[in-house]
Amino acid sequence: MTPVIRVAIAGYGNLGRGAQAAIKQSPDMQLVCVFSRRDPASVTLIDPSVPVYAMDDVAQYKDDIDVLILCGGSKSDLPEQGPAFAGLFNIVDSFDTHAKIPEYFAALDAPAKKANKVAMLSVGWDPGLFSINRLYGEAILPVGETYTFWGKGLSQGHSDAVRRVGGVKSGVQYTLPSEPAMARVRNGEQPTLTTREKHTRECYIVLADGADADTVRNTIVTMPDYFVDYDTKVHFIDQQTFESEHGKMPHGGFVIRSGVSGMDNETNNQVLEFSLKLGSNPEFTASVLVAYARATYKMSQAGETGARTVLDVAPGLLSPKSPAQLRKELL
Amino acid sequence: MTPVIRVAIAGYGNLGRGAQAAIKQSPDMQLVCVFSRRDPASVTLIDPSVPVYAMDDVAQYKDDIDVLILCGGSKSDLPEQGPAFAGLFNIVDSFDTHAKIPEYFAALDAPAKKANKVAMLSVGWDPGLFSINRLYGEAILPVGETYTFWGKGLSQGHSDAVRRVGGVKSGVQYTLPSEPAMARVRNGEQPTLTTREKHTRECYIVLADGADADTVRNTIVTMPDYFVDYDTKVHFIDQQTFESEHGKMPHGGFVIRSGVSGMDNETNNQVLEFSLKLGSNPEFTASVLVAYARATYKMSQAGETGARTVLDVAPGLLSPKSPAQLRKELL
Repeated sequence: MTPVIRVAIAGYGNLGRGAQAAIKQSPDMQLVCVFSRRDPASVTLIDPSVPVYAMDDVAQYKDDIDVLILCGGSKSDLPEQGPAFAGLFNIVDSFDTHAKIPEYFAALDAPAKKANKVAMLSVGWDPGLFSINRLYGEAILPVGETYTFWGKGLSQGHSDAVRRVGGVKSGVQYTLPSEPAMARVRNGEQPTLTTREKHTRECYIVLADGADADTVRNTIVTMPDYFVDYDTKVHFIDQQTFESEHGKMPHGGFVIRSGVSGMDNETNNQVLEFSLKLGSNPEFTASVLVAYARATYKMSQAGETGARTVLDVAPGLLSPKSPAQLRKELL
Repeated sequence: MTPVIRVAIAGYGNLGRGAQAAIKQSPDMQLVCVFSRRDPASVTLIDPSVPVYAMDDVAQYKDDIDVLILCGGSKSDLPEQGPAFAGLFNIVDSFDTHAKIPEYFAALDAPAKKANKVAMLSVGWDPGLFSINRLYGEAILPVGETYTFWGKGLSQGHSDAVRRVGGVKSGVQYTLPSEPAMARVRNGEQPTLTTREKHTRECYIVLADGADADTVRNTIVTMPDYFVDYDTKVHFIDQQTFESEHGKMPHGGFVIRSGVSGMDNETNNQVLEFSLKLGSNPEFTASVLVAYARATYKMSQAGETGARTVLDVAPGLLSPKSPAQLRKELL
């Protein structure tokens, strides 16, 4: 397959590295360059065969790039870059501040429409594939309940919080879905679940010299906002175990729709479940971004303009295969 | 919500009954009528508040129906009705003979285009939701393998086969996915699995008076095409147990994509899984048909014409909610 889609990456952290790896798995795509806010000479790519340019020079490459994949963070990078770059390129990003999506959508829609570009926002797995499955669940089984469970996954925010506790040398926090709660949902029950019933938390801590384990444990499990509403287990380990076993960024989760079909006098339980078990959260999110970059390209080629989300994308657009080939091989 | 989409059902077996029940769960839809090849007076609806008309008169109702849901079988009903009705109505069907989909697509596409209608074919869960998940899996994780397992489910064809065995009074057959095989796939392995390794079969049999259990069991487990390539368990039960425990039509299954991300020198396993646990196979298939009838209506309203499959349908089109509401509530 000859690469036909010219893509570039803006921002080169974990997500940007994952995007470069995912593009290498996509024979219909060619990575043109990487943009970074750091000094380009200081950026080491996982595959150094493409150039690194300064983020400030991005507009110069306007005609050389079909889709720009934004790999910055939702807190400060994307709110600034998204609206600016949507007026120059077809873009894809992973904006994941759920409550601010409507506002961010509007901020991309106007410049994208004006520039005749497509701006695909909030791509990844939640928001993203999980959103799609929440939608399939409630559209197909309108009488029912939808449950989202996360984990087992490394939580960056909670890991930062435990590392700020006095006496903690190194620390990491995992969120786990509650197996008993999931079993009830899968069984066709439609329980009302509290925060504490849905997820548990586990921390792996290396103590600083002279720190008291019970004090550290107590500070963590009673921490407002972060831990007090959950059942939290704190494990103390040595630095070597910490480094060998807790250096990955696994994540995942479950979307379960439990509904009923039939007439009131004789209903049947119907359960739909989607789950992810991810060895690397940023690499998977990047893989989703790259597949949606392909869809963005096709939608732009078809004349669409403006902001779009995963809910607007027909599944077939994600594949390098033709519609006829997909019908034959996958349907 | 005021019903705005006027739908009708063509064919009133298990699937048609399921469609009527699913439409009752959809406040944006109104069931106009049911068409049957039987004498309309002899058809008993699960909700008798709508009229039953003769299938031969369907063309008379051309302007009263936005989407016609075809609930006939793939073997003889749909190959005849699909191409004929696609020239009169927007239609949705559950054509499920995988190998013949490309040919059937073409047979619907021409009349639908000519009549400016949308013909949505092969809707359900396999083909249907499973196809979508096979596509998401391979598009997002291009380096990997996709596995489809079916069950636990009642197999109509295999149940018919066991009932034809001499000495069988009543019988039913369930297909089960192999738990050890699924565990290997979920674990990130990418095994090559034989037919025997993927699924097992279980039969529940009521013996006729004087029949020999060992003879019946042996005839079943060695039956060519149907059982000889599988590990089959045969359970003998009494007629009362058969009637009380084996009258439902459960089904379901699993689509699992096991892939890897990252660079060759350091890859991570990524596993995506979609599963269904269905209390009633025909009612669930009908629920999927009804959601896609809504999408078909919207696509027709937007000016699309011709044959379409689930791979062409953006998820948002399945929902009665507006795009803005979906972004706010589900993304």
